Amino acid sequence: MTENDLISLVARLTSRPASDVLLGIGDDAAVVKMPAGKSLVTCTDTLVSGVHFPAGTPARCVGFKSLAVNLSDMAAMAAQPRWIQLSLTLPAADAVWVREFISGFMALADRFQLILIGGDTCSGPLSITVQLMGFAGKDRWLTRGSANPGDLLVVSGELGGAAFALQQLERGQRPHPDLLQRLHEPQPRLHLGQALAAIASSCIDISDGLLLDLERLLQGSGYGASVQLEKLPSSALLAELPDTERWRLQLSGGDDYELCFSVPPSQRRSLQELAGSSDVAVNIIGEVTASAGICCYDVNGAVIQLQRAGFQHFEHSDES
Amino acid sequence: MTENDLISLVARLTSRPASDVLLGIGDDAAVVKMPAGKSLVTCTDTLVSGVHFPAGTPARCVGFKSLAVNLSDMAAMAAQPRWIQLSLTLPAADAVWVREFISGFMALADRFQLILIGGDTCSGPLSITVQLMGFAGKDRWLTRGSANPGDLLVVSGELGGAAFALQQLERGQRPHPDLLQRLHEPQPRLHLGQALAAIASSCIDISDGLLLDLERLLQGSGYGASVQLEKLPSSALLAELPDTERWRLQLSGGDDYELCFSVPPSQRRSLQELAGSSDVAVNIIGEVTASAGICCYDVNGAVIQLQRAGFQHFEHSDES
Repeated sequence: MTENDLISLVARLTSRPASDVLLGIGDDAAVVKMPAGKSLVTCTDTLVSGVHFPAGTPARCVGFKSLAVNLSDMAAMAAQPRWIQLSLTLPAADAVWVREFISGFMALADRFQLILIGGDTCSGPLSITVQLMGFAGKDRWLTRGSANPGDLLVVSGELGGAAFALQQLERGQRPHPDLLQRLHEPQPRLHLGQALAAIASSCIDISDGLLLDLERLLQGSGYGASVQLEKLPSSALLAELPDTERWRLQLSGGDDYELCFSVPPSQRRSLQELAGSSDVAVNIIGEVTASAGICCYDVNGAVIQLQRAGFQHFEHSDES
Repeated sequence: MTENDLISLVARLTSRPASDVLLGIGDDAAVVKMPAGKSLVTCTDTLVSGVHFPAGTPARCVGFKSLAVNLSDMAAMAAQPRWIQLSLTLPAADAVWVREFISGFMALADRFQLILIGGDTCSGPLSITVQLMGFAGKDRWLTRGSANPGDLLVVSGELGGAAFALQQLERGQRPHPDLLQRLHEPQPRLHLGQALAAIASSCIDISDGLLLDLERLLQGSGYGASVQLEKLPSSALLAELPDTERWRLQLSGGDDYELCFSVPPSQRRSLQELAGSSDVAVNIIGEVTASAGICCYDVNGAVIQLQRAGFQHFEHSDES
């Protein structure tokens, strides 16, 4: 396949009717029609082979995950995603790989009625950059940085499963299929995010690990948080791990595409109603504190120190 | 530097006042305010080290070029770019490199009042994906595929200089600074593109080489083109090359971030006026023909055959 062939293949596999797409794949740029009265919300995330997913990960999983991680960012904003651009850097134009990749990618795109409107393809080390555009009502999006002392701290879903699966893969073990799915096919919490617009004071996607992203959520506010370790939601598949090992995975393992958000105590009832109707579990894990820093407590109220906050690129780079 | 430090550095170096940016760098996504009555135009291009620029290219040039190639796509659409997302994949968090990169990037961004609103940073083989968003008036953008037989074929600027510089670099020679600048700091033709909205029938950015991109311009229309080789604009610095060598660089060398567009004969006078007032030369090089295929003629009217159309990724990949 040449680059032209590859673009044609992707265009054919992803074509969907969409009256708001005035010009889609195949020109120098794409043109879409914004709904009136909305703000444009956009995000982008790159996945690099060997960094964000193990080399040799099935193409279908890479396709699914490269869209999911971006959708998770839109979920954290309470935004409604709509249009996608996809930049594929591939070592070779392998039609079988591309078909599999697109099948995973579009499975998720179709679930949320997203339209691929353009992108780029080029040769190089395997890497995928997805860019999403969507919208939110005026002043109806969520941000980091606006939590207040006394707000309840809440997380969606279960924590630590993806990191445990990755650890097992790296050790040559076979993870349980449920955990492998959490690693390869994370479920973006879009509906939850949109429902949170009305009740949460702040929200973040915790894909780099709860502690690191909680730190980011509070950054700039001057506030801190207390976290009750026994309240961290975990899969039963992690139940047999020693507490400290499970906490490490849940707090700093990363790859959990869940939301962490703060809810004013006055909204506790709304939160309970939301928990009852949501398609994903939501659990209160602690609260925002007036004093800075994050403290983790065990069931006896003892402070537990963790060594590593979460995943950051370049942690071992030279200072310069 | 950690990833957090890197993001802070980029945010600091690129911060500009912008009343239409409701939420910029530092959250899960960015939020901007679309002007009323406009359509959203967007494009993205990835640059990979060793593919789109030689390894070891000065960081400032990489920064400039990674934005310029995207602006060239917006120019070809007659669109008005405004917001940028930047995904940086870096082998190491080298603050000196990042500062230089951003200085080149922002030199161009500031020239066109563009605002960096977000992006991503990660570790991996050097690669840059830029995504632009902007707008165009209703039905005021240009596309490929709408040229008609008899339309004049026009190109902006000079052709072949960047490819010649790259060839000299690859041979260990020192290119003339003017040609090196064409390679490293291509000038996007945004003002020209916007002026063309009123008179051109179609338009494309010819960064992959005139012949290949002209083929793309005509694709789907069923029409072809005749090109007069002696009319291809070239720098005086290429004057001493043999004709066939110069033609090869001009027709299929690539890396010319110029526009090729078609103009109905009825608009010839407007084109002349535009040529008089434009900040870049525009030259008629041939015309659109009713019969398919692209024919190149020398000054005596003899048909000249070229071997290679232009740059496509994956040209040497296995078929699959």
